[in-house]
Amino acid sequence: MTDQTPLKAAILGASGYTGAETIRLLADHPGVDAIAATGHALAGRQLSEIFPHLAGSADLAVVRADDVDWSQVDVAFGCLPHGTSQDLIESLPDHLRVIDLSADYRLTNPDTYQTTYGRAHAAPERLQTRIYGLPEWPQNDLCGADLVACPGCYPTASLLALLPLVADLIDPHAIIIDAKSGVSGAGRGLKEGNLFSEAAEGAHAYGVGVHRHAPEIDQELNRAAGRNDIAVTFTPHLLPMVRGELVTCHVRGDADQIHAALAAQYRTSPFVSVLPPGSPPPDTRHVRGTNHCRIGVWPDRVAGRTIVIAVIDNLIKGSSGQAIQNLNLAMGWDEQLGLSHLQPLFP
Amino acid sequence: MTDQTPLKAAILGASGYTGAETIRLLADHPGVDAIAATGHALAGRQLSEIFPHLAGSADLAVVRADDVDWSQVDVAFGCLPHGTSQDLIESLPDHLRVIDLSADYRLTNPDTYQTTYGRAHAAPERLQTRIYGLPEWPQNDLCGADLVACPGCYPTASLLALLPLVADLIDPHAIIIDAKSGVSGAGRGLKEGNLFSEAAEGAHAYGVGVHRHAPEIDQELNRAAGRNDIAVTFTPHLLPMVRGELVTCHVRGDADQIHAALAAQYRTSPFVSVLPPGSPPPDTRHVRGTNHCRIGVWPDRVAGRTIVIAVIDNLIKGSSGQAIQNLNLAMGWDEQLGLSHLQPLFP
Amino acid sequence: MTDQTPLKAAILGASGYTGAETIRLLADHPGVDAIAATGHALAGRQLSEIFPHLAGSADLAVVRADDVDWSQVDVAFGCLPHGTSQDLIESLPDHLRVIDLSADYRLTNPDTYQTTYGRAHAAPERLQTRIYGLPEWPQNDLCGADLVACPGCYPTASLLALLPLVADLIDPHAIIIDAKSGVSGAGRGLKEGNLFSEAAEGAHAYGVGVHRHAPEIDQELNRAAGRNDIAVTFTPHLLPMVRGELVTCHVRGDADQIHAALAAQYRTSPFVSVLPPGSPPPDTRHVRGTNHCRIGVWPDRVAGRTIVIAVIDNLIKGSSGQAIQNLNLAMGWDEQLGLSHLQPLFP
Amino acid sequence: MTDQTPLKAAILGASGYTGAETIRLLADHPGVDAIAATGHALAGRQLSEIFPHLAGSADLAVVRADDVDWSQVDVAFGCLPHGTSQDLIESLPDHLRVIDLSADYRLTNPDTYQTTYGRAHAAPERLQTRIYGLPEWPQNDLCGADLVACPGCYPTASLLALLPLVADLIDPHAIIIDAKSGVSGAGRGLKEGNLFSEAAEGAHAYGVGVHRHAPEIDQELNRAAGRNDIAVTFTPHLLPMVRGELVTCHVRGDADQIHAALAAQYRTSPFVSVLPPGSPPPDTRHVRGTNHCRIGVWPDRVAGRTIVIAVIDNLIKGSSGQAIQNLNLAMGWDEQLGLSHLQPLFP
Repeated sequence: MTDQTPLKAAILGASGYTGAETIRLLADHPGVDAIAATGHALAGRQLSEIFPHLAGSADLAVVRADDVDWSQVDVAFGCLPHGTSQDLIESLPDHLRVIDLSADYRLTNPDTYQTTYGRAHAAPERLQTRIYGLPEWPQNDLCGADLVACPGCYPTASLLALLPLVADLIDPHAIIIDAKSGVSGAGRGLKEGNLFSEAAEGAHAYGVGVHRHAPEIDQELNRAAGRNDIAVTFTPHLLPMVRGELVTCHVRGDADQIHAALAAQYRTSPFVSVLPPGSPPPDTRHVRGTNHCRIGVWPDRVAGRTIVIAVIDNLIKGSSGQAIQNLNLAMGWDEQLGLSHLQPLFP
Repeated sequence: MTDQTPLKAAILGASGYTGAETIRLLADHPGVDAIAATGHALAGRQLSEIFPHLAGSADLAVVRADDVDWSQVDVAFGCLPHGTSQDLIESLPDHLRVIDLSADYRLTNPDTYQTTYGRAHAAPERLQTRIYGLPEWPQNDLCGADLVACPGCYPTASLLALLPLVADLIDPHAIIIDAKSGVSGAGRGLKEGNLFSEAAEGAHAYGVGVHRHAPEIDQELNRAAGRNDIAVTFTPHLLPMVRGELVTCHVRGDADQIHAALAAQYRTSPFVSVLPPGSPPPDTRHVRGTNHCRIGVWPDRVAGRTIVIAVIDNLIKGSSGQAIQNLNLAMGWDEQLGLSHLQPLFP
Repeated sequence: MTDQTPLKAAILGASGYTGAETIRLLADHPGVDAIAATGHALAGRQLSEIFPHLAGSADLAVVRADDVDWSQVDVAFGCLPHGTSQDLIESLPDHLRVIDLSADYRLTNPDTYQTTYGRAHAAPERLQTRIYGLPEWPQNDLCGADLVACPGCYPTASLLALLPLVADLIDPHAIIIDAKSGVSGAGRGLKEGNLFSEAAEGAHAYGVGVHRHAPEIDQELNRAAGRNDIAVTFTPHLLPMVRGELVTCHVRGDADQIHAALAAQYRTSPFVSVLPPGSPPPDTRHVRGTNHCRIGVWPDRVAGRTIVIAVIDNLIKGSSGQAIQNLNLAMGWDEQLGLSHLQPLFP
Repeated sequence: MTDQTPLKAAILGASGYTGAETIRLLADHPGVDAIAATGHALAGRQLSEIFPHLAGSADLAVVRADDVDWSQVDVAFGCLPHGTSQDLIESLPDHLRVIDLSADYRLTNPDTYQTTYGRAHAAPERLQTRIYGLPEWPQNDLCGADLVACPGCYPTASLLALLPLVADLIDPHAIIIDAKSGVSGAGRGLKEGNLFSEAAEGAHAYGVGVHRHAPEIDQELNRAAGRNDIAVTFTPHLLPMVRGELVTCHVRGDADQIHAALAAQYRTSPFVSVLPPGSPPPDTRHVRGTNHCRIGVWPDRVAGRTIVIAVIDNLIKGSSGQAIQNLNLAMGWDEQLGLSHLQPLFP
């Protein structure tokens, strides 16, 4: 691969955290050059003004999408909010491979999309053909994919923990996911609740009973189980940390069987580790800055119940890193390309 | 009350956080004077050297328990680790009223105590007569109590959320408590995991399936329900914040009925608020520095399931503040005495 | 005092942190009732919606200033941004006592005001008659004051450390103030730099060489020294904490003399403590949540140089608490009224 | 280089943060294999038990130094506390190249060492021949060095900011360094002050006037200036963040000349950037996780005074990263080898 001309990539929506993180990670990718970064309000400014940490690694100016010469671009990473994302992606020329990090192509049912995201989908037929970009699950065949819908951060961690179990190892009607995320998961939007003074030194739940990632988790669990009646309890919490996501899954099933199934599933996955029984619980710090997911399994004190815990870095495995992993697979490359050197920043 | 001579209090174990917090709160209590602070390793030092924030409000030296003239003391607050606590408390003269903040008198069954805390109890008969110090629950009649076992921090929040429900509003065999605590809950003990560099910017579960507060929660739920078969799933997590505790209770039951029962239960409780339906989820910051508990109720997206969330300050309502509230009630005083001026420190 | 009818207070600009903090503190003040809270964009909403931590202690709705019946109001706390503050204050009826927390009345020279804040002052003559509200400095006679300009947070800490020294104990032309503040000092305004994700886990200087508090510090040092040529080096930094301000003053002078002068100056001040020589350096945590200032003095390793360090809670002694202290003095009350129960929240 | 057999490295003292960070960084270094990790108390345990974040990248057991077959080792990284470090290093066979991260070989004057670190140096003659490992300063010729004393974290940032200035651009007798560090700079030692509950949400100075890094800074400034009378004011502060170090240098000199000199000095240095005039002040977050130093220069409001600010990651450029950079140069390799892929983790 390294003998080939690098792919030329455009980042759609470079002023948010997923855009900046995709650009940061691509700077070390031997097979891809980021050549364009689009933005609306910030068009005309240098990326390194908006994100000084990128100075030195990404000397790009933000341009309006209309001003990009798309004939020079091979692949687009969609880092826009849902809605905006599909509108731009559907306007792009056909030759472009698209890796979308937004929610726009995750749900296959256009009605569910409309209910969940509050507008009709602009290209409902594409929801049937896009590939769901959770590469560790064999149903998602990414090789050659030209439109990839990257999972949400919570679905990534939740599904890695639950997909291998849902068909026959756990009660599919008693799945409770208590999820915790760092504040960067809320993006760069300006809201009082995301201010340091209001997010530090405390915790709270949000979106209780109504979070948009729940239907996505349902969809994939049902697909894996060959069912249509699974609905999970999903309760997310905002924690006073920047990066990191932890899902605590309370399920009915046997801990030994569950551990064995997870260990078997991910034996050869470079980015997913199942901790040996007796390990300390997985810690978001141990995957911070990496594309890794760590999963642990504990028998509950209540017979027949098991706790499965998964941790990821929400901006990498939960977003930009997984997007690059998906591109690697779509191109037929090693899925670790440009990602294997990422190590957890601890302490 | 303010015309009386203040009670004279000793704080047993003044070098930990609950000791320091009890002393801090008593400094504003019109009915109690802290006159002695005991310690072992730090005996001979001034409290304000150990805890500079107490300079000006508590000019006490730490003394060995053997050196206290107990005849001058009316009430002792036990702020020692379990085990150590009972050994000292059982050696004290009979005239002392004891408010114990340790785990030593919480469990009524000596066998459960031994299984949970790893040693035989020194005074098992006292486990039948002590009062469990969760004052909002009517079964706990604190008036005149001479030995009060203050609940653990997690049980405080969990029981306030669940006690009014467990008899007839929720399935007692499907209670899942996903709990989150700030690091001060781990005390002042020196462990790598409690270092700033290792506790900041991340989260992890601990004690999964085996935490010592679970049997205590079971005990009180069974007592309230008149059962003996309730066992909860209890999964605590350590969050990167100093103070604050949040319990997310996933239960089977009707959200409207649950909300109504909680609102009715706490209508006249000065320290427990049930949020109106539609409120934002309770936030630990909104009770930080106070003796308050806030509880919210949400219907789940899965029919028949409800999420009940409670927040407290683990060092106040979860520990030292509740201890003082218990003393107030034991003395026949207003339960808010010395506590009503505490307001949440926000931001 | 407690036999009198409480003063009726209006808070001008209740949607920011200083407004909320003033309201929070007044809830425990026996001599003042907050009866009105003004706001523009948020008029019509309940304060407890905007600041849920105030639920229970402040059940006020935000109203437009035009809709307040000022004849019912005795005192106004100005919690608005500079510029906006003077415009409203100058429109208020004469009977009102005004405690302004903004920068609008701090500078006595209208030209300096215009240069520093970018607009002509609306009432330059008032700059000569207002009282500068640093009550610990004897030149500021607050008794009976009807317009008080509360100092900025940085000037409060800096001046408490330097005023007793500047006339004859230190070189007035070699004063370097390296200042550090928590993020709440930046207010509730929505800027990327104040987001948790961008303010956590790092530090940076800002306003280097040009911060607006420097002319205010100069003004008061010159007044105290009877000079007009003092200009300080002032370099503020933003730290990843919510509350707290620390100023490290590097001066030329003798440490023993400096310590003696500070200790003498504040011997009877209830809110300012000078640490004994050999104490650990003052910590912002030890004054967090209080109206206290702690000051320490160290000889430098370089002969003839001394380091003076002061810490405050920027929202209390640096803002709302000092405003209340100023009102107390203006009314002839004990300066500690409504403030003495505030104790540091540690840990 | 990549055609050669990798060097075999031993990490002396692998249970602290600098040891763990050196091992983490070496995992991506193409020219070095970490083959041994020594420890005393933790000997026999797997590194990945002590530091779970290393699982997968460093599968080494901790062994006692006595049990290492030193004939198999080419280079040793000294990650021990001072004192302990020299004792082990002086006992090692001669063929070993040593990169010491401790303070033991930094000071050239044995008397200064004894005064500063409280014991006589075991090998004072080595203090004359070791190379001071600040590779950006041309006096430090690292090529072929067999004993490198890596600078302290504070000296690294301070000297990068000041060395090019001290000979003729600033007053050498009026240098004030106000320094700020994250808590990881305090190491993994167990002290109350480093607990999350006591280090979060506040700031304080420490070692005021007496910090051990001041003599080291003096030594190198004097060497660069060809003087022996420079003594700096150095005041460090502990900030509530894990990684990051910021030094604010208040000097007398002309800002334009200073900027020009710094820019010229580091024009070709891959790891040091001098920000263009008018840039936002450097932020520790923008170098977090990297071997970079960013420096900015501001004219003060006081004529003739200038503020120079430098930021680094204390565990990388301030410690383990610079150690590897030094090894690269000692070996005649590209100084960026194994370090160039490190990018700032932001947000």
